[in-house]
Amino acid sequence: MILVSWQRASILALFCSSVYAIGQSTCVTFQPSSSSFSVVSNGAAAPIYLSSDEWPGVQLAASNLASDIQNVTGHKPQLANVTSTSADLKKSGTPIFVGTLGKSSLIDTIVNNTKLDVSAIEGQWEAFMTKVVSNPIPGVDKAYVIVGADKRGTIFALYDHSEQFGVSPWYWWADVPVTTHPNLFVTPSGCSHGAPTVKYRGLFLNDEQPALTNWAMEKFTNGTGAPLTGSPFNHVFYTKLFELLLRMKANYLWPAQWASAFNVDDPQNQFLADFYGIVMGTSHEEPMMRSIPVEWGLFGTGPWDYTTNNKTIYQFWVDGAERAKPYESLFTMAMRGDGDLPLSATDAISSLEQIVSDQRQILMNVFNETNVTNIPQMWCLYQEVKGYYDEGLRVPDDITLLWTDDNWGNMRRYPLPSERNRTGGAGVYYHYDLVGDPRDYKWIQTAQVSKVFEQLSLAVDRQATRIWILNVGDLKPYEMGIEWFLTYGYDSPRWTLDNITSFTPLWATREFDLDAADAQEVASIMNNATRFLARRKPEFLNSTTFSLTDYREADNVLAGWKALNDSAARINTKLSSSKQPAFFQLVFHPVQAGYTLTDMWVSAGINNMRASQARVSANDYADRVEEMFDRDWELENEYHTILDGKWDHMMDQTHVMYYYWQQPMQNTMPPVSRVQAKKNALPGVMRIVPEGTLGAGQATTSTSARSGTTAARRRSRSTRTRPAGSR
Amino acid sequence: MILVSWQRASILALFCSSVYAIGQSTCVTFQPSSSSFSVVSNGAAAPIYLSSDEWPGVQLAASNLASDIQNVTGHKPQLANVTSTSADLKKSGTPIFVGTLGKSSLIDTIVNNTKLDVSAIEGQWEAFMTKVVSNPIPGVDKAYVIVGADKRGTIFALYDHSEQFGVSPWYWWADVPVTTHPNLFVTPSGCSHGAPTVKYRGLFLNDEQPALTNWAMEKFTNGTGAPLTGSPFNHVFYTKLFELLLRMKANYLWPAQWASAFNVDDPQNQFLADFYGIVMGTSHEEPMMRSIPVEWGLFGTGPWDYTTNNKTIYQFWVDGAERAKPYESLFTMAMRGDGDLPLSATDAISSLEQIVSDQRQILMNVFNETNVTNIPQMWCLYQEVKGYYDEGLRVPDDITLLWTDDNWGNMRRYPLPSERNRTGGAGVYYHYDLVGDPRDYKWIQTAQVSKVFEQLSLAVDRQATRIWILNVGDLKPYEMGIEWFLTYGYDSPRWTLDNITSFTPLWATREFDLDAADAQEVASIMNNATRFLARRKPEFLNSTTFSLTDYREADNVLAGWKALNDSAARINTKLSSSKQPAFFQLVFHPVQAGYTLTDMWVSAGINNMRASQARVSANDYADRVEEMFDRDWELENEYHTILDGKWDHMMDQTHVMYYYWQQPMQNTMPPVSRVQAKKNALPGVMRIVPEGTLGAGQATTSTSARSGTTAARRRSRSTRTRPAGSR
Repeated sequence: MILVSWQRASILALFCSSVYAIGQSTCVTFQPSSSSFSVVSNGAAAPIYLSSDEWPGVQLAASNLASDIQNVTGHKPQLANVTSTSADLKKSGTPIFVGTLGKSSLIDTIVNNTKLDVSAIEGQWEAFMTKVVSNPIPGVDKAYVIVGADKRGTIFALYDHSEQFGVSPWYWWADVPVTTHPNLFVTPSGCSHGAPTVKYRGLFLNDEQPALTNWAMEKFTNGTGAPLTGSPFNHVFYTKLFELLLRMKANYLWPAQWASAFNVDDPQNQFLADFYGIVMGTSHEEPMMRSIPVEWGLFGTGPWDYTTNNKTIYQFWVDGAERAKPYESLFTMAMRGDGDLPLSATDAISSLEQIVSDQRQILMNVFNETNVTNIPQMWCLYQEVKGYYDEGLRVPDDITLLWTDDNWGNMRRYPLPSERNRTGGAGVYYHYDLVGDPRDYKWIQTAQVSKVFEQLSLAVDRQATRIWILNVGDLKPYEMGIEWFLTYGYDSPRWTLDNITSFTPLWATREFDLDAADAQEVASIMNNATRFLARRKPEFLNSTTFSLTDYREADNVLAGWKALNDSAARINTKLSSSKQPAFFQLVFHPVQAGYTLTDMWVSAGINNMRASQARVSANDYADRVEEMFDRDWELENEYHTILDGKWDHMMDQTHVMYYYWQQPMQNTMPPVSRVQAKKNALPGVMRIVPEGTLGAGQATTSTSARSGTTAARRRSRSTRTRPAGSR
Repeated sequence: MILVSWQRASILALFCSSVYAIGQSTCVTFQPSSSSFSVVSNGAAAPIYLSSDEWPGVQLAASNLASDIQNVTGHKPQLANVTSTSADLKKSGTPIFVGTLGKSSLIDTIVNNTKLDVSAIEGQWEAFMTKVVSNPIPGVDKAYVIVGADKRGTIFALYDHSEQFGVSPWYWWADVPVTTHPNLFVTPSGCSHGAPTVKYRGLFLNDEQPALTNWAMEKFTNGTGAPLTGSPFNHVFYTKLFELLLRMKANYLWPAQWASAFNVDDPQNQFLADFYGIVMGTSHEEPMMRSIPVEWGLFGTGPWDYTTNNKTIYQFWVDGAERAKPYESLFTMAMRGDGDLPLSATDAISSLEQIVSDQRQILMNVFNETNVTNIPQMWCLYQEVKGYYDEGLRVPDDITLLWTDDNWGNMRRYPLPSERNRTGGAGVYYHYDLVGDPRDYKWIQTAQVSKVFEQLSLAVDRQATRIWILNVGDLKPYEMGIEWFLTYGYDSPRWTLDNITSFTPLWATREFDLDAADAQEVASIMNNATRFLARRKPEFLNSTTFSLTDYREADNVLAGWKALNDSAARINTKLSSSKQPAFFQLVFHPVQAGYTLTDMWVSAGINNMRASQARVSANDYADRVEEMFDRDWELENEYHTILDGKWDHMMDQTHVMYYYWQQPMQNTMPPVSRVQAKKNALPGVMRIVPEGTLGAGQATTSTSARSGTTAARRRSRSTRTRPAGSR
């Protein structure tokens, strides 16, 4: 095999670093050098100190870092709030100081004492730096200082170290085992990161029924959900999600909406989001931080129509703004019709302009803010809204415009040069998951890293980097794709056409602690599995998707899947049992599920075709369809029963046999026929079907000969053949 | 139950006669009266005498009569050719004299001796009379004289007696057991019948593959068929058919044609037809007593196109006429295109007129006949030919015009008064069986006695009675319908609106020796079975034929079949084992077969519907479809294995799952789906489906809500419902 340059680069990267982290420059080592700072060595963990005036979210992240260090090394660092004069500091040896510039009096003291140069991050959104500094505090000779430019800068610095130490962001959400090390060191020059490429990077939990809803209902509630909404998405659920987001350096969330209302489901939800450090938004169709349809259904009166019910709706929005005021929010502006449908107003454009004007007045009133541009606002050019925009609707300059894909991962367009100098900038709303026609897709991961890179690198190029929001459906099982979206948005320059293919091997290495060859193999499995699943979404597969007669298409498709399956099975066998649950969720399940479903549909096609050819072997394929249909359920059941049922319901999504665009209420098997095997077919016991043809079929000759039928030819004999046994 | 007059008449008829014959006046009794003539009594059978100058076909029929008498009574009559001075006659007691007027010197002598009044039949086509006469011959005190006006008159008289004695015409072809009696008598006034209503009454074996062909191949050949054609239809086969026809008083036959050539398959075929007494014809598309396509394919050269190849075709027809000359024939005139298609000539009408003119010249030349009207000729107004006629094509006056049905038993039209004074008269070509679009029907009997009566009583009324020819496919299993067609054509005045319903009970009584109530029950079974099968031809059944939701249509259809099935099973249990094979062939098989097929299709519909409703009970119906599909084969297999395989292959006809108009090459099961029963459907464990509706289906609500989809509404949520577990 001849490796092209980016392959060499990526393999080299795997060999040169034993730190399993994706996308960042590393400052962690597991072997000491003369200058390295010991986080853990010889059974001793450096204490971690913050100050009590630090952001609570940073305190929480530091606590998680301490636990992570314990999980990696077996030694738990001391974690404490201190002041620069705390008595403890003298006895602590070489501590780790953590804090946010301008917030932590401890860090401000250290910066002041040491003249630490923080100019690279100061005032930079979510930037951080770390460094070993001498004499940071009187009585402390040396310390490792972790400094964030703001709250999330510090938090990201902490989780960046966790990942480099050996804790995947997915340690809980995909059961990725911690990679253990007896000792942990950091290099004296430390790590750093400037402002992320994309300012708001987040996820949209959407169309979360049945999988995420049923799972959360079982795991986080007593089975009934919230009193008013029935939603299971309480703060126990959301805080796990907030942590995941922050570990991936995301900062933004559109909560589940269709049968939930974030603020109503659990009054702690919004408070805790802000506490953790997550900027809350609402989906593109839910303005002013209030949920539609659930919250409006509970508390609104009259129609969701600003033309006829503006007083009620205005007050509804005032209440939303008041409620959100204490917390970090990004306001969705404007309005769609009820049920995510277009507005019914005849003059939608002028109606929308009035609505936005009123909403901005509300914000100014509530926030007592004369300059509304100080309040982050967003407007999504989704579906018909983009049509209004194209027709001349103009949006206040400070509102970020979200450009969207076509629901299928193809961006409709990006801002033109003339549209780029808006103060609100531009963003992207992108789908990994859809409920809508022509068909839902919400079962397993069909987004390809390469495709997403191709689409979003254009967003970077066209400066649509203010907001990136990703529709992730049930969240799982899109783990790898989600991580790629957020990773790329966090640091886009890191990824280029030359190194983009290193993402998947780096991901495989981090998640499964693999050697380079196996990581490359897993990367190949994932890249091909998503390619196969993207080629035709599983929900769109049917018995005629792949040609059964030409170019051996169906054979080749199945052979491709079988190769992935064999490969994944081989890796799985090599993995320790502690890694197999993660491998199943992230790799082996989607491969087996895609293979099984494809085999079922191809077998159904062969069954149907061979029945039409009067071939008895059709019956073997009827059996195979039934077998694959059962196998499909077995895979789902395996997903639900591993780890004592931790992910029960997470694969509830129906996905076999669509009747229309919406998900079927139950999986139903593709129809199969059977050929009567107990008697000979009329032409005799054997017929020749040349490869690449449909053969003679049940018709004695081609049925197309009948297409010219006219009344006068009603009894045409043109397709008659001689009976068997005759000449 | 209030019986209307015809019902009373028919039940009365059953009670008043112990002679099991259909349609004729009876002269047979099983108890002697003072004047009755003993055919068999006290262990002695009256001898049967003919003269050696009698028609060989009469001799054969008389021999069959003697065998029939032996089968009924156990006593075989002496059968001999005698002269009026034969020595034997003196010792014979009271003999039966059989002969044809003007042919049998014996009968002519008796008529001359006794001044027997034969004026009622003399010169009447196929008429006969019988009478006890005194001193017919010197030395013979008394005799029973059976006199035919012509060859078939005598033959029909003989078989008429056979039927009345207790031998069904179907004794071999449907294994109807002989009804035995120790004694047989005839009334002194005897039986008689004038000329039949319809002059030529016959059958067309057509589309005889697979069933009849495969059966005949096994039973009458060494497995290979005739050398040139591969056809199994040799004289061993045909003589059995000739006898059946004559026993039903038919006289005309269009032989199997598609892979056969009557004269080529077996050189004895045409000779023996004439010997037996059958008038041979050829199908409407085979002129001049030569077969198309087979014989032309073997011996013709060039295209079957009179415009371009008239010399060859002319000679082909000369040869046909020469070959037919010694035998009684009815010539099919004119021409169709190859493969039973319309002529390709642009001026078809003038082309046809030339063709017919040439054909008639051939007949005059070959028969050395100056008056071509002495040679029976026929032209069938089938399909496009009727179009030519409507457009002005005129046919020589002496050629009989055959009017046709629409292939589905509905006569297109009958001759108008202005068309009735032709010397050639008019006739009928009628279908019980079809190969053609929109779909073949050739499996089991779908012709209803009542419908055929309704259509053909019009033929009588409109004087289309010169020829009646019936397309019977494989012959079996249309036994009852065939008998009805021929019976009605033989003596139409016998059957009226008031007594037509007595046919089926009379038939049931004769075939199964039933009491009146059971005969009525079997009649009801047959009338309803053919009604159900005619309502929708079995070949046209599909999973949506009967409504599964409205008016309980499918339920009622199945309940109707079940009632017939239960009834037939009850009768079957009562029958002696010797009668069960006939009952199976004639009644029980079609009932079970129709029931099974209907159940299979309805179950397939329920399966498909319930799968679309996400109902687990769909799976029970998938199982039932498979069960019924197997049951269908079991019924076929039972047909093939009764009586040591006598009817092997006779139910070979495929009939499940048509792909286009032509028969499928193999039966294939209707496609069935299965609902995943191992997980709950998304809406929960139970859904209500109100009777008369399709319920909510796999769609969360009605799919019709999506029909107004536009681009702007591509992501409509209008059919969304709340997830399970939520309010």
